[in-house]
Amino acid sequence: MNLKQLSLMLDLSQTTVSRALNGYPEVSEETRRRVADAAKRHGYRPNPSARRLATGKAGMIGYVMPTGASVDIDPHFVEFLSGLGDYARAHDLDLVLSPADARDEETTYRRIVANKQVDAVYVSAPCHGDKRVALIHQLGMPFIVHGRSEGLDFDYPYLDIDNEAAFHEATRLLVQLGHKRVALINGDDTQTFAIFRERGVRRALAASGIALPPVLLRSVAMTEENGYRAARSLLEQSEAPTGIVCSSLIMALGVVRAVRDLKLTIPGDLSLIAHDDVFPWLKPENFSVPLSTTRSSIRAAGQRIAERLAARISGLETGARGEIWPVDLVVRGSIAGAPV
Amino acid sequence: MNLKQLSLMLDLSQTTVSRALNGYPEVSEETRRRVADAAKRHGYRPNPSARRLATGKAGMIGYVMPTGASVDIDPHFVEFLSGLGDYARAHDLDLVLSPADARDEETTYRRIVANKQVDAVYVSAPCHGDKRVALIHQLGMPFIVHGRSEGLDFDYPYLDIDNEAAFHEATRLLVQLGHKRVALINGDDTQTFAIFRERGVRRALAASGIALPPVLLRSVAMTEENGYRAARSLLEQSEAPTGIVCSSLIMALGVVRAVRDLKLTIPGDLSLIAHDDVFPWLKPENFSVPLSTTRSSIRAAGQRIAERLAARISGLETGARGEIWPVDLVVRGSIAGAPV
Repeated sequence: MNLKQLSLMLDLSQTTVSRALNGYPEVSEETRRRVADAAKRHGYRPNPSARRLATGKAGMIGYVMPTGASVDIDPHFVEFLSGLGDYARAHDLDLVLSPADARDEETTYRRIVANKQVDAVYVSAPCHGDKRVALIHQLGMPFIVHGRSEGLDFDYPYLDIDNEAAFHEATRLLVQLGHKRVALINGDDTQTFAIFRERGVRRALAASGIALPPVLLRSVAMTEENGYRAARSLLEQSEAPTGIVCSSLIMALGVVRAVRDLKLTIPGDLSLIAHDDVFPWLKPENFSVPLSTTRSSIRAAGQRIAERLAARISGLETGARGEIWPVDLVVRGSIAGAPV
Repeated sequence: MNLKQLSLMLDLSQTTVSRALNGYPEVSEETRRRVADAAKRHGYRPNPSARRLATGKAGMIGYVMPTGASVDIDPHFVEFLSGLGDYARAHDLDLVLSPADARDEETTYRRIVANKQVDAVYVSAPCHGDKRVALIHQLGMPFIVHGRSEGLDFDYPYLDIDNEAAFHEATRLLVQLGHKRVALINGDDTQTFAIFRERGVRRALAASGIALPPVLLRSVAMTEENGYRAARSLLEQSEAPTGIVCSSLIMALGVVRAVRDLKLTIPGDLSLIAHDDVFPWLKPENFSVPLSTTRSSIRAAGQRIAERLAARISGLETGARGEIWPVDLVVRGSIAGAPV
């Protein structure tokens, strides 16, 4: 079935059908739904080149990918990308990854905007007062931030999970279980997610008059090895923590190894809760002692970002809408009352 | 410094300088080197848009990314992508990921070729008689296969690691240590890398008159959980293996967990060797018992694929060159003589 046949069948002009399928705002919601249903039922898929000509869009979502010898893209990225890809495939969008020098992403942002290679971009791993967000806002290309940046003097569209609440709840549970020395093994603390998580931990502890002294705080790149080193250094000090909240499952692997090497046990000597982005290849319920987690699917976030970018490209979404997802706290065998 | 200034300084025409920088074959190697040196010394970088206009190239490398609810892109992909990005950044190339229905990648290949979105593509995870390789060969777009496909009736350019030799050497070492029951926990055995690995294991065993019976062979998606399940089922049978060769580090995590749950030890009861793609976030030397590995950096492979694709785009590389990298066998504490 082609556009002409579909239009005849629906008794609509080809222009209207095309606009409905491409999400133009001037088509009513009812017509859009009617057209979409018919297209789906009869297996009509618009030819992307024709669509591009008709809409003046590239049909591409962009991402500026920081690279360099010192930059390790971590496995979170691939799960996020899977989600983005799920949506993009169903909507004939491609993703353009523009590798950039991690010390100078600005040049690359300016280039992709100037070249009109993509219709919209997403920005990930934002930090406080993130310059990339300010730049892309100023350059006027549609964008969404995955995460949030504080300290900017304008509003912008974003999708984030509630990192502060997640780590607040996790820490509060440990405090309720009698833990007084709770440590945080965090990711890179120049990034907003890490700032928010630390804030959540501090707030939960402060509610019971407990502090988070520097000796109970680590901020490191999220590898197994760093998790191990952080846990060893925490557990070998005289005032060792009885509870650890940890920013990634991969670091938690290292924590578990450190606990074993020190001949300690989970949860007897140490209660452990880690953040789980829901990787299909590594599951917290399969840890030797099933791991309690704060859980949020980063793949689902990728899908949603793609969906919102598509809506921004077509004009269905405008303005600076922030969307914050709640995070599950999933209790498994790795936590128990504080040792006496 | 702009193109004109660079040309004046070198006493060459702008056309020659431009061609030299863009790797046209008609420029002599000496001139190319002279121009590249001067450009580097004076910080000249060609404007990508201008280059695109001049060369008729999109400046983009493509990858058709299979997606769908049942498709898990695994963390190998992100390391490969990092390597590809390292090279691409330095050469102003972008990567276009075109998500495709995993059951119908052909449509997407045809689309990206028809739309001239990219100058070249790479194909990954090839299987026997891979249809995508046959298709892209027929469509006439420059490409390189990461891995190899047997059973095609034409030659094509590829980059692969020597999977057969790697698993042959690993298995031979176990046999030399006295192991007679060696099991293989492999990846998806429709893929060439897995076929080659199995071949290497069989050949090493056969050289000592040992067979690889079906009860000592597993072929599964490479997750921690599948590694655990495979190892448990292998180790709980009456004729349990004393040695395991395993196709990924993530599956090896599961093997180690199974060994612990069964109250066995490595290497006392079981010798273990796994393939290591060199992830920065999970290192075999950090396993509770340091893990012996067959090692090859998938990030380096990504860099090399990008380099060769760039060479094919500019015409510097032509023909069906196959490149096979040797694989290191790295011995650590996880192997020992067979238990008596």
